[in-house]
Amino acid sequence: MPKLQVVLGIDIGGTNTKFGYVDREGHCLAGTSIQTGADQPAQQFFNQLQENAKSLLENIEEECELAGIGIGAPNANYYKGTIENPPNLKWEYVDVKAEMGRYYKVPLAITNDANAAALGEMFFGAARGMKDFIVITLGTGLGSGIVANGELIYGADGFAGEIGHTIVDPNGRRCGCGKLGCLETYASATGLCRTVLELSCHSNLPSELRYFSAAELTSELVYQAALRGDPLACEAFDFTGRILGVKLADSVAHLSPEAIIFSGGLAEAGDILFKPTHKSMEEQLFPIFRNRVKLLRSELTQRNPAVLGAGALIWDVLQKKDGTP
Amino acid sequence: MPKLQVVLGIDIGGTNTKFGYVDREGHCLAGTSIQTGADQPAQQFFNQLQENAKSLLENIEEECELAGIGIGAPNANYYKGTIENPPNLKWEYVDVKAEMGRYYKVPLAITNDANAAALGEMFFGAARGMKDFIVITLGTGLGSGIVANGELIYGADGFAGEIGHTIVDPNGRRCGCGKLGCLETYASATGLCRTVLELSCHSNLPSELRYFSAAELTSELVYQAALRGDPLACEAFDFTGRILGVKLADSVAHLSPEAIIFSGGLAEAGDILFKPTHKSMEEQLFPIFRNRVKLLRSELTQRNPAVLGAGALIWDVLQKKDGTP
Repeated sequence: MPKLQVVLGIDIGGTNTKFGYVDREGHCLAGTSIQTGADQPAQQFFNQLQENAKSLLENIEEECELAGIGIGAPNANYYKGTIENPPNLKWEYVDVKAEMGRYYKVPLAITNDANAAALGEMFFGAARGMKDFIVITLGTGLGSGIVANGELIYGADGFAGEIGHTIVDPNGRRCGCGKLGCLETYASATGLCRTVLELSCHSNLPSELRYFSAAELTSELVYQAALRGDPLACEAFDFTGRILGVKLADSVAHLSPEAIIFSGGLAEAGDILFKPTHKSMEEQLFPIFRNRVKLLRSELTQRNPAVLGAGALIWDVLQKKDGTP
Repeated sequence: MPKLQVVLGIDIGGTNTKFGYVDREGHCLAGTSIQTGADQPAQQFFNQLQENAKSLLENIEEECELAGIGIGAPNANYYKGTIENPPNLKWEYVDVKAEMGRYYKVPLAITNDANAAALGEMFFGAARGMKDFIVITLGTGLGSGIVANGELIYGADGFAGEIGHTIVDPNGRRCGCGKLGCLETYASATGLCRTVLELSCHSNLPSELRYFSAAELTSELVYQAALRGDPLACEAFDFTGRILGVKLADSVAHLSPEAIIFSGGLAEAGDILFKPTHKSMEEQLFPIFRNRVKLLRSELTQRNPAVLGAGALIWDVLQKKDGTP
């Protein structure tokens, strides 16, 4: 009997690295995580990673054959197989293909986490059967992955899909990237908190959030307050949705996607965020695109999305190699 | 001796329709134009078109075989082979494939003029060898065609690439599409004239352009004034470039193109427009994209670009069919 083909999906984050074995149908057969240890040398990290991955594989009852490795990581370059100046990690430049090549002889692919999330949705989630869609991850920042003509868009240098760094206002909020007014300084968990502070200053809206310091505020606190009808919290979500909607209309004008799919922590807020987003987007859409673009939620939220996305990345590469459509 | 394979490239404009026979290397063997006659029924127009195309073909000395027909037209739908509510034309909905099918049995493809321009640059012009680029046509409006992974992006409904209708300011200038603040109300020949009027109102800059009425102003007048150092005309170009640069930075954040290529009448302005555009774009780029994206001029300007673009459209389809890379 042939062994079950699986891939190793790895999501390298600033604090933890999640990984697991994913079959062609998107079942995660086993998964776990280790601390990334942002201060340790990359070589040490990858050694630890492979040791843990090895014992995880041995724990799977079914006999498996490792077909490839997919990695999602911040500032990952798909073409070069590297991680370059990742935020929250001390590694300046890591040749991931070479590091992993010490231990594995199977095909390996790496891309940023939002691109991996897009492939995860295409293979196993809300974008199954779609050829043109955008995935937006709303977490601490705003990540995005773009699929057009059934292919993930990497662009000329492997870094396409940075919708979080499109410009809302050239004189707006300072972004971690150094620019002013990037979308992610408004539409993200931290952006939402910044909006609460701005509204605390500019408006007279009453709010329980006025009792929290800037350092204490979290998107979860804002969400809970909004659920209780807190006027300032509700306005903060409205404002966030209005801005996000305007910029998504720009994305639609570029790409004419069938759907925009949201994942990440802030997406859990649901209608309280996406109703104003949808209304604003529709108002700003070029007429031929109106009422055609679906706003959807990730279908992988409960299913280890980061590991499934990383797994989808390498399944995508393997399918192209063997000509499977 | 085998006949020379040619395609018929057709560019349907509001006033004139240009067409010609284009070989695989991008030579236009014969070309001419007829009046579109925007008031006449579409059926009559297509009959007249094929009669003229037939006699044009007979005038070519070399024996040719017609391999296909490519058409660039406003509001053309690539997937359906139709033109829908074209601006400046009285045809509400024309099934172009059916109309042309009365006379021709060869493959036919249709898309909007900016998409055709992008394929023209990829096959025969400034984008030869590129897999990721954007073409911006600066005329009365602002059109765009996007190529990623070596494929033109049509999107889910065939209408992708409407960068002219991305939003500069949700409370900005009224656009022909009904929205407010679209890029093409700023960055286009008409946008430039509107900026002159705005500056005439808001600034005290001296200018010879203050002696022209709104109805008399043309982008050519503004260009000639700027060449003479007219302060208001120069500021109008600077303002146009600054706005265009900010929005192009957004396009780069989506697509990470190798180059952005400009064609159309206003692109003839050259450095006077593209210097401020480039400066503004670089300032607004996400750091990893800086100094990587080339701003280029069309290489087809002197070579019947609309007809070459329409020809490239159908050569693209034919190459995919026969598997030629």
